[in-house]
Amino acid sequence: MAEQVLGAGPGGTPSRATIAEVAARAGTSVSTVSKVLNGRPGVSDAKRDEVLELLHGIGYQRRGEGRRSRSNLIDVVLPYINSLWAVRLLDGAEREAERAGVALVVSAMAGRTLGNRLWLERFKQRRSDGLLIIAQRIRPELADELPRLRAPCTMIDAQGAGIPGVPSVGSTNLTGARDATAHLVELGHRRIGIITGPTDLVYSQQRLDGYRAALARGGITPNQAYEKYGGFTIESGYQMGGELLDLPQPPTAIFAGSDLQAHGLYQAARERGVSIPDELSVVGFDNLQSCEWASPELTTINQPLEDMAGLALRMLVNMAHHDLAPNASRVELATSLVVRQSTAPPPA
Amino acid sequence: MAEQVLGAGPGGTPSRATIAEVAARAGTSVSTVSKVLNGRPGVSDAKRDEVLELLHGIGYQRRGEGRRSRSNLIDVVLPYINSLWAVRLLDGAEREAERAGVALVVSAMAGRTLGNRLWLERFKQRRSDGLLIIAQRIRPELADELPRLRAPCTMIDAQGAGIPGVPSVGSTNLTGARDATAHLVELGHRRIGIITGPTDLVYSQQRLDGYRAALARGGITPNQAYEKYGGFTIESGYQMGGELLDLPQPPTAIFAGSDLQAHGLYQAARERGVSIPDELSVVGFDNLQSCEWASPELTTINQPLEDMAGLALRMLVNMAHHDLAPNASRVELATSLVVRQSTAPPPA
Repeated sequence: MAEQVLGAGPGGTPSRATIAEVAARAGTSVSTVSKVLNGRPGVSDAKRDEVLELLHGIGYQRRGEGRRSRSNLIDVVLPYINSLWAVRLLDGAEREAERAGVALVVSAMAGRTLGNRLWLERFKQRRSDGLLIIAQRIRPELADELPRLRAPCTMIDAQGAGIPGVPSVGSTNLTGARDATAHLVELGHRRIGIITGPTDLVYSQQRLDGYRAALARGGITPNQAYEKYGGFTIESGYQMGGELLDLPQPPTAIFAGSDLQAHGLYQAARERGVSIPDELSVVGFDNLQSCEWASPELTTINQPLEDMAGLALRMLVNMAHHDLAPNASRVELATSLVVRQSTAPPPA
Repeated sequence: MAEQVLGAGPGGTPSRATIAEVAARAGTSVSTVSKVLNGRPGVSDAKRDEVLELLHGIGYQRRGEGRRSRSNLIDVVLPYINSLWAVRLLDGAEREAERAGVALVVSAMAGRTLGNRLWLERFKQRRSDGLLIIAQRIRPELADELPRLRAPCTMIDAQGAGIPGVPSVGSTNLTGARDATAHLVELGHRRIGIITGPTDLVYSQQRLDGYRAALARGGITPNQAYEKYGGFTIESGYQMGGELLDLPQPPTAIFAGSDLQAHGLYQAARERGVSIPDELSVVGFDNLQSCEWASPELTTINQPLEDMAGLALRMLVNMAHHDLAPNASRVELATSLVVRQSTAPPPA
């Protein structure tokens, strides 16, 4: 049996006469009905519902709009769903999708290879209008494949480097790391440690560079014993934080490269009877919800993850539905310092 | 322009001759090719990729499989994405979707009305194969609409009560609350408080009932001053927890109706210089990731959220693709106590 479509021919666009009739019955303008048909803003929810109701009543079911057939689906692929970091991105993408009148098809790679044939086949079968990739690392084979897809593609957090022909969105990591460290310097700290991420990620290097830049500006000589590398995980924060606190002369403040590392550092401090912020100041990075759940609440650098995802999605919709090229191949949105309760002047 | 479909007629199923040819070229059986076509398990990833590659090479693009046209899309609608609770459910649904060969279309209501016309219109336009609703409360209008949708529907956490004709999945709340409280009784606590949720939710009542049942079994007379009602939020845990700790004779242990409430309670305790677990034991409910980030790590009741969502999704796929009725109209999966560092015997 073929697909069942109520009263819509190929393309599914109702005739001008039909649009005029619906406008008249809804007591509104042709342009408003057109906005509803095209999922554009500027129509109240109540009016939109009324127009859709009328359209539905005359047997119209929107399938494609304008020049070419659209699925009004955007695929989002990400490494794992179950993280507060991923979920801020999904949240931002979903809100923008709602505004743009498209729906998100969400899939997680969960250890599978991003870009395997099965996943690509399914993506093509859905005929999604675009693909938003959230990934820290991209396999070279996939990088080759992406520009050959019929649908446009954008990326978030693409290794800082990106893929030719695929616009990407990130945040100002270097500035964020500098601001985090400068905050500690301004509070009067001189012995400041850092826990950063894996050395092969551009982000880890940027966080270290920002830290060193702020130390230099504060006239503080860097101490290699205060620089730790780990994963962006709670375990890593616990371990590296413990090593920093066990130094003969431990730091009085630590900049953790992620909020999760900061949570692990909290545990290491508690086990050693080190009080935050009286004896140790801590700054995180990301501004996950858990910063407000931590006790004391965690001072951190906000990454505008919702806005990053919203922008990447908007670029996709502009490319797919309006033939608008992206403004730039790489966009970085500004980070900001969020001061809470985990930072204070050093002990006297 | 009509939709572009590569070499697939209505239904999109390749002929027996085509399947046999692909099987021969892939050096495999017709039954294996058929499994790949139908998204069924029992085929290695490598072989599946090879078969899909061959099918794709001869211009086949799967659209429908078997008797009726399928979109292989399942809609998931939830109140908010940005919560650790929602994300465990999404994670479980996505894993099961991957196994079943369907993709998830995720939308959040974010304060909009679940079941408004616009959302329903979009759902119908997508012709999704099914609808998974995650919600604590359902508007009566939507309850009327759901059985009339052409696609099957399941629910998670439907107020405990559910909607006639819509199968739902939950967890054993009452047992979980009893186990949480019994754990505190067994540690020797006699002054045990509870912070539960809004009085109109079945869950809140079940948590209170389980708490009282465990007290009764421990021979402890209930004390109304120890029973607090609030939202399932961190703020509520902070406020109600503070009220409990400020009592002339405060409890030595508190069962919080959600992990978020427990996080708020941690803050209230820290501000009052009350040490967890030495002076106060705390048990949460849900087992969110944040339990491991808390310091000390939080003892809690695990809700098998991933399994709940996976089961609800599997029921949907069985109904939509295999005409299998659900096993029961209401299924509750077992909770379990997870002991971490926030509980200990009462101070001497």
